[in-house]
Amino acid sequence: MPNLKIALAQINPTVGAITANTAKIIDFINRAKEQKADLVVFPELAITGYPPEDLLLKPQFTTDNLAALKEIVKQATGIAVYIGFVDQNKKGIFNAAAFIEDKKIKAVYHKMNLPNYAVFDEKRYFQEGKNPVIVKYKGIKIGLGICEDLWVEKGPYLEEAKKGADLILNINASPYSIGKIKARHKIVKKIAQKTKAHIVYVNTVGGQEELIFDGGSMIADPKGKVIASAKQYEEDLLVFNLEGSRKLTPFLDELPEIYNALLLGIRDYVGKNGFKEVTIGLSGGIDSALTLVLAVDALGKEKVHPVFMPSSFTLKQSEEDSLLLAKNLGVKLEDLPISSLHDAYLKGLAPIFEGKPADITEENLQARIRGNLLMALSNKFGWLVLTTGNKSEMSVGYCTLYGDTAGGFAVLKDVPKTLVYRLVAWRNSQGKAIPESIIKRPPTAELRPNQTDQDSLPPYEVLDPIMQAYVEGNKSLKQIVKMGYGKEVVCKVTSLIDRAEYKRRQAPPGPRISPRAFGKDWRIPITNKYQNK
Amino acid sequence: MPNLKIALAQINPTVGAITANTAKIIDFINRAKEQKADLVVFPELAITGYPPEDLLLKPQFTTDNLAALKEIVKQATGIAVYIGFVDQNKKGIFNAAAFIEDKKIKAVYHKMNLPNYAVFDEKRYFQEGKNPVIVKYKGIKIGLGICEDLWVEKGPYLEEAKKGADLILNINASPYSIGKIKARHKIVKKIAQKTKAHIVYVNTVGGQEELIFDGGSMIADPKGKVIASAKQYEEDLLVFNLEGSRKLTPFLDELPEIYNALLLGIRDYVGKNGFKEVTIGLSGGIDSALTLVLAVDALGKEKVHPVFMPSSFTLKQSEEDSLLLAKNLGVKLEDLPISSLHDAYLKGLAPIFEGKPADITEENLQARIRGNLLMALSNKFGWLVLTTGNKSEMSVGYCTLYGDTAGGFAVLKDVPKTLVYRLVAWRNSQGKAIPESIIKRPPTAELRPNQTDQDSLPPYEVLDPIMQAYVEGNKSLKQIVKMGYGKEVVCKVTSLIDRAEYKRRQAPPGPRISPRAFGKDWRIPITNKYQNK
Repeated sequence: MPNLKIALAQINPTVGAITANTAKIIDFINRAKEQKADLVVFPELAITGYPPEDLLLKPQFTTDNLAALKEIVKQATGIAVYIGFVDQNKKGIFNAAAFIEDKKIKAVYHKMNLPNYAVFDEKRYFQEGKNPVIVKYKGIKIGLGICEDLWVEKGPYLEEAKKGADLILNINASPYSIGKIKARHKIVKKIAQKTKAHIVYVNTVGGQEELIFDGGSMIADPKGKVIASAKQYEEDLLVFNLEGSRKLTPFLDELPEIYNALLLGIRDYVGKNGFKEVTIGLSGGIDSALTLVLAVDALGKEKVHPVFMPSSFTLKQSEEDSLLLAKNLGVKLEDLPISSLHDAYLKGLAPIFEGKPADITEENLQARIRGNLLMALSNKFGWLVLTTGNKSEMSVGYCTLYGDTAGGFAVLKDVPKTLVYRLVAWRNSQGKAIPESIIKRPPTAELRPNQTDQDSLPPYEVLDPIMQAYVEGNKSLKQIVKMGYGKEVVCKVTSLIDRAEYKRRQAPPGPRISPRAFGKDWRIPITNKYQNK
Repeated sequence: MPNLKIALAQINPTVGAITANTAKIIDFINRAKEQKADLVVFPELAITGYPPEDLLLKPQFTTDNLAALKEIVKQATGIAVYIGFVDQNKKGIFNAAAFIEDKKIKAVYHKMNLPNYAVFDEKRYFQEGKNPVIVKYKGIKIGLGICEDLWVEKGPYLEEAKKGADLILNINASPYSIGKIKARHKIVKKIAQKTKAHIVYVNTVGGQEELIFDGGSMIADPKGKVIASAKQYEEDLLVFNLEGSRKLTPFLDELPEIYNALLLGIRDYVGKNGFKEVTIGLSGGIDSALTLVLAVDALGKEKVHPVFMPSSFTLKQSEEDSLLLAKNLGVKLEDLPISSLHDAYLKGLAPIFEGKPADITEENLQARIRGNLLMALSNKFGWLVLTTGNKSEMSVGYCTLYGDTAGGFAVLKDVPKTLVYRLVAWRNSQGKAIPESIIKRPPTAELRPNQTDQDSLPPYEVLDPIMQAYVEGNKSLKQIVKMGYGKEVVCKVTSLIDRAEYKRRQAPPGPRISPRAFGKDWRIPITNKYQNK
C-alpha cells in the first residue's frame, strides 16, 4: 500500500476567472502544505473553470491559462500538484492535466475520452489525447487521467495499472443530477477493483449556470472501498494519509441533496454574476413559495425582495398566504397591484380588438405586466429576478413568454411539480416555512376567475411521469402508453411539449437536477414537424 | 467521359416532416424520370431534414426514417437514386446515403467526416463511417460521399478515385454565409482536379431557424470547370447530361445574395412554423423599415401588419416617415400610442421608486410596453412577431430584453448596422421603398428626449469592424488595437459584448448570414469572468 498523504482540493473556480482561480489554487496549495500533504490534487480545468465553452475558441484564452499554470508551477515546492488546464500543441488544444513536482512539470496527460453527449461538447474544442501516462513520485507509480476516462470501457487506467500504477488520479468537473454521487461511487469502486490501485477522485464544486458541480470527492482503496470522502456542495480540502483510518462524509438523502443542489445553483448564479440581491414575484402558489424559501436559505433574508402583484382575479387567500409566508421568513413583501395597468392595456387595445372575444391574450397580458414590474425593480435596484415556473409547466408551455418566464434564473426549471410538493414537505420538516394552505389549495395561475391548472392540464401525478419518459427518457408514444397511460393523455402531453419549444428557447437558465434538463442537453428544433408515434 | 443524365434534386425538406419530405422526394423522382434522367441525387439527410438535432436521440425517429426509405426504394425503377438518410446498426446511428437501383439498395455510404464545429454537432449523434464506397452503375464507377467529406484532407474521394471512380457524388446540407457559394465552387474545382472525376454537388435549399440553405447545386468536370449549376434560394431540379453543353445559373452579387437569404429565412420560418401573417413594430428608424420591406418582399403585403407605437418622446418625423413607408409598400399601419400605459406604470411604481432618479428603468419600460402590445396582437390574431434589432445592437446589448427583443424571429440579428444601410441602398435601387429621411436621420432609440445611439455607442463604422473581429474572428483586444482602433474604444465595445450575454441567451433566433452568428455557433457562458487582453 502506498504511503502518501494526499490533499483533495475540491475548489469552486469561476469560468474565465483565470487570475482569481489561480489565486485560489495557490491558496489551497499552501493550505495543503501546512497540513504536510505530499500531493495536492485539483479538479479538471481548475485554472479556467468548467465548462469554458467558446472561450476556448479564443487563442488568447489558452495563452492566459498557460501563463497561470506557470505561476502555479512556481508554488510546487515541497509538494506535488496534479491540476487541470488547457494544453496546446500544433494539433490544437487539449483538456489536460499537469503533474508538477519541484517547480517542474513532470508529466502532462491529455484527456483521451472526450464526452460529446448530454451537456458536454468537448469534441467541439479539444483534440483527443493518445497516451496513458504514469509518473513516479516518492517511489510510487501514479496513473494519470481525467473525468470521462473513468467511465469508458477503454480508459487509460487499465493500461496504467498493467504498467504498475498503484495509485490513480482522476480529476473531474462532474455535474450533479439526482443520485449521481452513488453512480460515481459505483464506478470508482469498479475501477479500483479492476486496477487493484487506490483511486483518488477529485470533483469540482459550484454552480455554473445550469450546471451544479456537487463535490463529493473521494478516495477508494484497491478493494473498491471508499476510505475518505469530502463534503457535498461546498469547497473542501480533504487531507488523507492512504495508511490512515477512514474519514467519510455520509451521503445526503434524496430531498436534502436536491435542496442543497438548488441552493448552490442560486448562490453561485447570483454571486458569480455580480448580483447581491434578488426579487421574486409571489403569487400565493406553491412554486413561488418554494422559490422564495430557497432564495432566503441560499442568500439570507435581507437579500431577497418578494413582490405581490394582485389582479382583480387574485383571491384574498393568495394575499393572506403570501403575507404569512413572508412573515414566516422575516422578509418584507412589496405590493404592486396590476388591475389599473391591465385596464390601461385593454383600453389601448380596444379599437384594434373590437368584436373579438377575450381569450388567452388578456391572460398573458397580466403575466407580462408582472414581468415588466419585476424587470423595472431589477433595473432600478439591481436585483436579479428569480423566476418561479417548474419543469412541468416549462415542458407543456403552461407559462407566459416575457411574463412569468421573465428573469435571470429559473430556480425550479428542472423540478417537476410533484417534486415541488416533496421538497416543500421536506423543507417544512426542517422548520415550518410554507403555510399549509399554500400546499393544500389546487394549483392555479389566477389569470381568470376560478381558474385551476387542471382546467388545461392532466393531474400532475399523470403529467410528470409522461413528461419524464418523453423528455428524460426519449420514449416513443407507444412506449409511454405501455407504461400504463391512456393514449389520449399521452398524445396531449407530448404534443404540448413539442409545441412549447419556442418558449423554452427564450427562457432563462435554471439549475439542472435531472438526467436531462431544458438546457444544453435539450436541442430540439423549434421548426420541427416530427409526428411522434 | 461518362455518358449519364443526372438530375440534381435540390429540395426544401422540413426538419422532422418525414412523411411530407418523402412525398416530395417521390415527386422529384417522378419528375426526374419524366425527363429521362438515369440518376437522381438528393441532399444530405433529405428524408429527415437537416439538422434534426436531438430528434436523433429518439430511437423511433430513426425507425420512422428507415420506413420512409423503404417507400422511396420502391420508387426506384428505371432510375437510380442517391439519397441521404439516417442509418443504424449495432454501433449506433450514421449520417448515411443510399444508392438505390431497381428497387434495391445497392450500396450505403456512412459519412466518414463528421463536422463538430461552428453550427455543427454531428459527433453528438453519429458514429463515424469507416469506408469509402464505390458503386458501378451503367458501366460507370461512382464514388459516394457526403458534405464534409469534400472539405477535409483525408476524405474518401481520393481513395475512390484511385479505385477508378469517374463520377463522384457529394450531397450536402451546407448552410449559407456571405460568399459561401464561391468557397464551394473552389473546393469542388479542387477535388475534381485531384480526382480527375466529375463531381456532382447537391445542396439542400430552405430555412431552418437560424440556418439558411442556399442551394446552388452544381456539376464540375474533371478539369474543375463547373458545367452546370442550379438556382440559389429556391427548389430546383437540374437535369444535365454529362456530355451536354453547359447550363449555368450566374451568381448573385453580394447584396442581392444577402437580401435573398434573408427572404428565404423569413419565408421558411413563418411557413414551416405554421404562421400565415406577421406583425412588426415600426419606429421610424432604418432597422424596422428594412425588416418591414423584407417581410413584405418575402410574404406579400397582405400578410404583414406593421404597428406604430409612439410615446411622448416620439418625434413627428418618426410618424410621418413610418406612414410614408407604409404607403410606399401598400400596407396599413396600426397605431397604438403608449404614453398612457407608460404613465400608468410610473404611477404604479412611484411608491417603491420614491426618491430614485429616472434612469434606464423608465426607458426599458417603454420598450417592454411595446413588446407586450405586439405579443397581444400575436396572441389575438396569430401573427408572428418579427423583431427588428440588428447585429450591432445585439452584440453590445443596445436593446431591451422582453422589449424590442420580444418576438419569434429576429430578421436582422446577424446583420450589422453598416450592412443594414447597404442593404437598404440596394433595395431602394430596385424600386423606391424606404424614404430618404429614414436613411438620413441619426439612429435613435427615442426612449428619452433627443437621444441618439451615439450617446452610448461609438459610431457604427467603428463599432462594426471591432465587433466582427471580436465575435466572428475570435481576435484578442491587442490584435484589434493593432487593426488601427483605439484601446479605449476596443475595450468599451468588447466589454459591452461580454456583458450582454444574458440578453442574447433569451433572444429569438434569426437568420445566419455571417461566418459566426449569435446562435448555435456562439456558446459563450453568461457566467464568465474572463478578462480579455
